Amino acid sequence: MNKKIDVLIVGAGPAGVVCAITARKYYPSKSITVMKDIEEGVIPCGIPYMFASLKTPDENKLGMAAMEQKNIGTAVDKAVKINREEKTVETEKGDSYSYEKLVLAVGSNPMVLPIKGVEKQGVYQIKKDMVYLKDVINKIKQCKNVLVIGGGFIGVEFADEVSKLKDIKVTLVEILPHLLQNSFDSEFSTMVRDKLKENGVDVLTGIRVEEIMGSSRVEKVRLSNGKELPADGIILGVGSKPNVQMAVDAGLELGTCKGILVDEYMRTSLDSNIFAIGDCACKRDFYTRKAIAVMLASTATAEARIAGANLYKIKLIRENKGTIAVYSTYIDGLVLGSAGLTEKSAESEGFETLAASVDGFDKHPASLPGAHKSKLKLIFSRQSGIILGGQVSCSISCAQMINVIGIAIQKRMSCTELETLQVATHPYLTSAPTMYPIILAAQDISGKFKE
Amino acid sequence: MNKKIDVLIVGAGPAGVVCAITARKYYPSKSITVMKDIEEGVIPCGIPYMFASLKTPDENKLGMAAMEQKNIGTAVDKAVKINREEKTVETEKGDSYSYEKLVLAVGSNPMVLPIKGVEKQGVYQIKKDMVYLKDVINKIKQCKNVLVIGGGFIGVEFADEVSKLKDIKVTLVEILPHLLQNSFDSEFSTMVRDKLKENGVDVLTGIRVEEIMGSSRVEKVRLSNGKELPADGIILGVGSKPNVQMAVDAGLELGTCKGILVDEYMRTSLDSNIFAIGDCACKRDFYTRKAIAVMLASTATAEARIAGANLYKIKLIRENKGTIAVYSTYIDGLVLGSAGLTEKSAESEGFETLAASVDGFDKHPASLPGAHKSKLKLIFSRQSGIILGGQVSCSISCAQMINVIGIAIQKRMSCTELETLQVATHPYLTSAPTMYPIILAAQDISGKFKE
Repeated sequence: MNKKIDVLIVGAGPAGVVCAITARKYYPSKSITVMKDIEEGVIPCGIPYMFASLKTPDENKLGMAAMEQKNIGTAVDKAVKINREEKTVETEKGDSYSYEKLVLAVGSNPMVLPIKGVEKQGVYQIKKDMVYLKDVINKIKQCKNVLVIGGGFIGVEFADEVSKLKDIKVTLVEILPHLLQNSFDSEFSTMVRDKLKENGVDVLTGIRVEEIMGSSRVEKVRLSNGKELPADGIILGVGSKPNVQMAVDAGLELGTCKGILVDEYMRTSLDSNIFAIGDCACKRDFYTRKAIAVMLASTATAEARIAGANLYKIKLIRENKGTIAVYSTYIDGLVLGSAGLTEKSAESEGFETLAASVDGFDKHPASLPGAHKSKLKLIFSRQSGIILGGQVSCSISCAQMINVIGIAIQKRMSCTELETLQVATHPYLTSAPTMYPIILAAQDISGKFKE
Repeated sequence: MNKKIDVLIVGAGPAGVVCAITARKYYPSKSITVMKDIEEGVIPCGIPYMFASLKTPDENKLGMAAMEQKNIGTAVDKAVKINREEKTVETEKGDSYSYEKLVLAVGSNPMVLPIKGVEKQGVYQIKKDMVYLKDVINKIKQCKNVLVIGGGFIGVEFADEVSKLKDIKVTLVEILPHLLQNSFDSEFSTMVRDKLKENGVDVLTGIRVEEIMGSSRVEKVRLSNGKELPADGIILGVGSKPNVQMAVDAGLELGTCKGILVDEYMRTSLDSNIFAIGDCACKRDFYTRKAIAVMLASTATAEARIAGANLYKIKLIRENKGTIAVYSTYIDGLVLGSAGLTEKSAESEGFETLAASVDGFDKHPASLPGAHKSKLKLIFSRQSGIILGGQVSCSISCAQMINVIGIAIQKRMSCTELETLQVATHPYLTSAPTMYPIILAAQDISGKFKE
């Protein structure tokens, strides 16, 4: 069957959904269809919390009700081929969709490490598929020893969440020296490790899983330090790679980051009727203009808004300054946020840096009930005095402080501007105005420029 | 006795203290003395919480330990006269201090309304003096019916806090139609009223206290609606006026806002060796350049840093874009923040505005434990598309969102920039990336420009 659609969006993750809603707003008369290859999707960043925090996994469903309300069609099918000359997409079910504008929001696929035995039963990837995940959750709940491989955000959040389940011993294994090493300097990584350990998670860093052992099912693993650990369930949280096969088959270009190459308005480089957004699209680094693969729902949805508004005409002018990573995570009361470059990553990119850290409390006076220690670090360019990055650890009241830092980075604010920033402070919500950590860190840095 | 000091700072509130610490950092060889006219000061914004939240009022002491550590002198005395030609300050105790640089950080005095009977016993102003406040707290705790006059931040926070004390009935009276009317549009003010009512506070708006009645002590009040209310304690929270008498006597100029007139670097207009910072200094409005009297510790400390760094040489270049009000408050779990102009105030200043509000939740999915409703409103200039202000109501996890808005205002960000902002989102800490309220509000506005 051949269907004629004005705007065909392939993929129904956050990028696809937001693109559809944006397109509906800007192009009210166009027909729009979102194609999804799984019956029921999930909110990606909520996946860890399906294990214990949420009453049922269904609470993390990625609702499609907004689609109907806004007269956006949905099709459950898998796109398999793009014919760029005919402007059609062929599907697994044998249908063909003709489009005026095609948006690829096809996401990424979890990476599978080439570990011996990784194919055994009991080894789980994290796929954004409700049916699949419900099955994983049920199986993990029956385990005694769960091993999480990968100490990035996914791995850390899974380890924390699974440790809340009764009678399950959780071990987190990371090959690098520190947890969350790409996003945090070691003084922050250490806090995550300590928090997880406090909650009963064994944290092994600088260690590789050499072999997953057992008959057909996983029974234990052998580590690079020679030790063996019992394990009846393994979660792989080792990152994802852009889903680009269909784009490659259609002759579209990839960037050096292996994502689909796009211009300022998310149009693919060789075909301005085809857009790519989210995890499958290449991004440019804010600092260096290098092609990078940042896979964050917040980045994906920003790109979706750009594409959706500009499908037919460029309506929403974008100054694409490039992508910064702005993250936050939450481990049992501890909030950690990172924006931009770490001190280590800045130096390895060739920046000459100055950094300052400020320890304090998130209420003032610190004797107010519920006050919690906070730590903030800012990294600046030594010569130009422009902010390069920041990290924060705090309680939930300062969670949005990483977005204050994020916006300062995006506006390339100077140390002087931050030193004289006007901020809201309140006894129950922040440190004292005399001690607001972003200002104190900037002030500390500004004293160092003369050194 | 004549004392010779390089930098004399009169006033030991947040402005004086921060100015001294900053001056010490930038001018390590100068002698610095902070003069305070009360034995023991308090953290200004913590005053309400001395009544119930803190275990003892002493926990809200404004510590001076940092002064000693940093080799900053302190003197307990009251400056009474400035001799500008001799460069000396005379004190109540009869001493004379000669200075190279003089910083006036003398703050503001609570206003006393011309209500009949306001001089009676049992009517309390809020002074930043520990001894005085301890006495007030003890007396209020013995009351049965406490009336708070003034529905601004001070009044609202006092009403909330005193209502936590046992067996005290609290009534809040505000002459304007809404609580917090200068900082919030009515849809937010209403939430504050509802929260206070929920906690047993009687809220009377659009009503004036006509007379405070009783023999020598307050016993009841008569309201503008003719009703009488029993009251054995009254707290006046009706604002403050800059403390400028000594500056006026010394022939220094005032601005139209009745504060001491200063230049970009907080130098008084007629004498560049005398600085004025904080509540006693005139500020310029960010939007209109009008002289305004914003009395916030965060503004005061920003000015203190400018003055302290630039006492002898201009070291810290300031682009004084003017003062925006950035506030937050906390009422029993409800956080309210405001930055910049409200829709109403923008219109009364002559701006043509577009506003959008976004309702949502502060976690995603909203079924996560502890999720709380949130509401955000942004106000933009209709033609130029620049953000003018924002308001937020939420739980504690979004407390810093008002500082995200504040920084967007200070950088005069456009609707388009905010629509494509890169932000950190997390299930436990924010709405979904598809629903981040600042982005959604900007997107909503951007659809309205064409109208």
